[in-house]
Amino acid sequence: MLSTRTVPRRITLSARRWAHVSASSASRKPLKPVAPEDVAHFSKILPQTAILSTLAPSALPSSELEPFNNDWMGKYHGRATTVLRPQTAEQVSKIMQWCYEHRIGVVPQGGNTGLVGGSVPVGDELIINLGNMNKVRSFDPVSGALVADAGCILESLSEYIAPHNHIMPLDLGAKGSCQIGGNVATNAGGLRLLRYGSLHGSVLGLEVVLPDGSILENLSTLRKDNTGYDLKQLFIGAEGSLGIITGVSIATPPAPQATNNVILALPKFDNVLPLFKTTKQHLSEILSAFEFIDRTAYELAVKHGQGKALSESEIDGAECFVLLETSGGKREHDEEKLNTLLETLMDADEPLITTGVVSQSPAQFAQLWRLREGVTEAVSKEGKAYKYDISVPLASFKDVVDIVREHLRKQGLLHEDAVKHVIGYGHVGDGNLHLNIVAAAYAPEIEAALEPFVYELVASYNGSISAEHGLGAMKAHAIHYSKSGVAVDLMKRIKELFDPRGIMNPGKVLEI
Amino acid sequence: MLSTRTVPRRITLSARRWAHVSASSASRKPLKPVAPEDVAHFSKILPQTAILSTLAPSALPSSELEPFNNDWMGKYHGRATTVLRPQTAEQVSKIMQWCYEHRIGVVPQGGNTGLVGGSVPVGDELIINLGNMNKVRSFDPVSGALVADAGCILESLSEYIAPHNHIMPLDLGAKGSCQIGGNVATNAGGLRLLRYGSLHGSVLGLEVVLPDGSILENLSTLRKDNTGYDLKQLFIGAEGSLGIITGVSIATPPAPQATNNVILALPKFDNVLPLFKTTKQHLSEILSAFEFIDRTAYELAVKHGQGKALSESEIDGAECFVLLETSGGKREHDEEKLNTLLETLMDADEPLITTGVVSQSPAQFAQLWRLREGVTEAVSKEGKAYKYDISVPLASFKDVVDIVREHLRKQGLLHEDAVKHVIGYGHVGDGNLHLNIVAAAYAPEIEAALEPFVYELVASYNGSISAEHGLGAMKAHAIHYSKSGVAVDLMKRIKELFDPRGIMNPGKVLEI
Repeated sequence: MLSTRTVPRRITLSARRWAHVSASSASRKPLKPVAPEDVAHFSKILPQTAILSTLAPSALPSSELEPFNNDWMGKYHGRATTVLRPQTAEQVSKIMQWCYEHRIGVVPQGGNTGLVGGSVPVGDELIINLGNMNKVRSFDPVSGALVADAGCILESLSEYIAPHNHIMPLDLGAKGSCQIGGNVATNAGGLRLLRYGSLHGSVLGLEVVLPDGSILENLSTLRKDNTGYDLKQLFIGAEGSLGIITGVSIATPPAPQATNNVILALPKFDNVLPLFKTTKQHLSEILSAFEFIDRTAYELAVKHGQGKALSESEIDGAECFVLLETSGGKREHDEEKLNTLLETLMDADEPLITTGVVSQSPAQFAQLWRLREGVTEAVSKEGKAYKYDISVPLASFKDVVDIVREHLRKQGLLHEDAVKHVIGYGHVGDGNLHLNIVAAAYAPEIEAALEPFVYELVASYNGSISAEHGLGAMKAHAIHYSKSGVAVDLMKRIKELFDPRGIMNPGKVLEI
Repeated sequence: MLSTRTVPRRITLSARRWAHVSASSASRKPLKPVAPEDVAHFSKILPQTAILSTLAPSALPSSELEPFNNDWMGKYHGRATTVLRPQTAEQVSKIMQWCYEHRIGVVPQGGNTGLVGGSVPVGDELIINLGNMNKVRSFDPVSGALVADAGCILESLSEYIAPHNHIMPLDLGAKGSCQIGGNVATNAGGLRLLRYGSLHGSVLGLEVVLPDGSILENLSTLRKDNTGYDLKQLFIGAEGSLGIITGVSIATPPAPQATNNVILALPKFDNVLPLFKTTKQHLSEILSAFEFIDRTAYELAVKHGQGKALSESEIDGAECFVLLETSGGKREHDEEKLNTLLETLMDADEPLITTGVVSQSPAQFAQLWRLREGVTEAVSKEGKAYKYDISVPLASFKDVVDIVREHLRKQGLLHEDAVKHVIGYGHVGDGNLHLNIVAAAYAPEIEAALEPFVYELVASYNGSISAEHGLGAMKAHAIHYSKSGVAVDLMKRIKELFDPRGIMNPGKVLEI
């Protein structure tokens, strides 16, 4: 697969959408575009302010629908004529009944912060945007069970429960705009998974409107319930392809009394694994994040103003960085554990780290996190990114990045006008690497060089081609790199069972 | 519903099986009993030692099959003629192909330690016992991912990973005989759920033989994988009604460096909730268990030799007890946190507890746990138990026990020859109450007094009629007390999709 050609190659700059899913597909069922009579019907269900349409009678300019039709990376572009913004599950139910009856394709849309084109149409499907469903329904400060509308923004929920000394069990860079329903629909991982586990463990119940409009109401606040099949699990990570999540019940953990973080510079990648082992040993239950940033990613973050934790001399000779965080119940205990770890690391005969910076204030704490969380923003300022979100064995993180960079170099695509950087960062504790190929622009040649190359590489490690971002429109065609034929066949039959007319988020997850 | 009659009532002692599921049912599909030609076919797949049958040619006496046909409580009784004990998933696959083709009902059986009759036949189905599939396939000491045959005994797995300083994420009284496949199939909760979460979060992958014999192989050791629907979740808690789990991949947490436990005597139940709050505040992330035992349950445990932690004078005036456990990374820190908690409790103006005993040695630690874990054994020594395993709001634990006892009293059933005790114990941290009605013998009058009374009571609290035990044969008919019609209908369609011939563990979970 590797070519020996290393001559820089000119690439075709292209603004066209470069996803694998087209607006129509032989395996998809015929769908009807939204027509003026449909909009007329929706106006019996929703107030006019909740309907945005380029169709008569409102006939808005299509620019008004742009924020809904395009993803934030500018990579995926839909052609929806109509966006509905319901406020209740009952309204969603009535809309779905109509769409089911008339075979209108529907895209559920949360904060539209996804990375795989899952929340914009592949064609002219109707968009149901959940942003107006933004009320907290209940919170129990003893059990920590929070019940909220699907459209509540993650950060707003964090702020809502903060006075009760609880935190959301997940945190991610997009917290200011992503919605809890979208988080659940995509089984978002993020920064706290190491400590608080996945949404499959912390979601207690869901309210879901099924494709035919019926409402599956199980907003249980019970931590344990073994009565029949755990249906809610199917919707966690189904990316809106089985139904629309309209309400979420979730267990929120007590807020830690103290948090600390440290950034460590490592002379070589090979030290990450022993560092992770030593860290787990010393910090055990208070370790809440162990994030990896390679040198290129670090430098991009610094370049684009995402903070600067270490001086030039301190990063001298560093091949990569680790950001670790503790969250615990007693500040003195946590600091003692952390200090013992740092002393052990510095006093070692062959130190695993060259230097480290411990945050000394809430501002510094936030600054260190900004370095890690800001990589995404830095990358988008630097260029257009091909984002691969993969699970591979920790020991192979660096190999994967190096192999992909070398492959692009040999293809003549590693230069300022094509691929500018190949970087790796991510959640070591979860075996989750974010591999970003930062290009001057999206271009067919680059994608052709990357796919299926990256997927085959991941499969060779028995990894997952999507650790936390989902498949969406980007990777629906590639599911077989991570799942067997028996599994994909079962998934298709489940899709058929829930959505026999193929109207729910068509083209996503399974290419149907 | 409550009657005013309080005259003691004689009850009919009855040895007959008193489950709601009969060997045949109008809603179930016709199945073929195992015949000698089937056994002849199985002997081409398995060695003779792996086939136990009362049919020709081996024609064993039915007594040889008793341990497989009956549950350990002596409550559920099957009439299987044949038990198969395969060693590999391929053997299970071949058996299932045959059974599918010939419409032979199959009961997957692990350690047969369940409490709801889920692992014995309702009629003469074939039993596939997983006990011979007992090998560890792999263990990764860095990630903690353990891959094991479904028939591995939970305690053996704990012992296997102990030298690597890891522990299983679940622990339960039956650990010495229950199997990991059965744990997963029943979504077992147990004593560590408060700290390590449910199996929906910790199971990483499963190998499942589907009813038609195809193998769904996804023994992933990845912590994160968002590629399509999370099929494994459907089998977690499906009680063997969708397929046979033959292999399990599970995340095991690092072993704590230190564990402590304490038993506390409370003057009144109302103190449990504030005690739980105070405890969480002080112990936060090191709190690993918070178990409730009412006075009657405590006394039964002491009576039947399950340990004695407190002297007569110490339990004087105690209405209930709490056993709490800490598991942490540094002994001194944990002890300091625990001591601060105990001092705060004892020094309060209106103490929540009357007394407490802190274990001072591993032997004492085990002794305190034995009191809690031994309640099950004590109950079985005292009589025949109707076990209800429910989720209700913590504040109503005592009310539920009192209401049921009073109901039985008014029915004239609370006396030495009928119901001897009504006790409550369980996992406060998870909102999970074990309500046990200890009778002289199983009797129709008692069950008639209890059901649907208990289920209606639970439903009135929006609770779950099965927090962790599952539905099995006992509660399949009662699922609607905890799940909506839309949900049950979807479950039935999923059952139909996976098992169109209705051969997998018939009569369990959904009465089909």
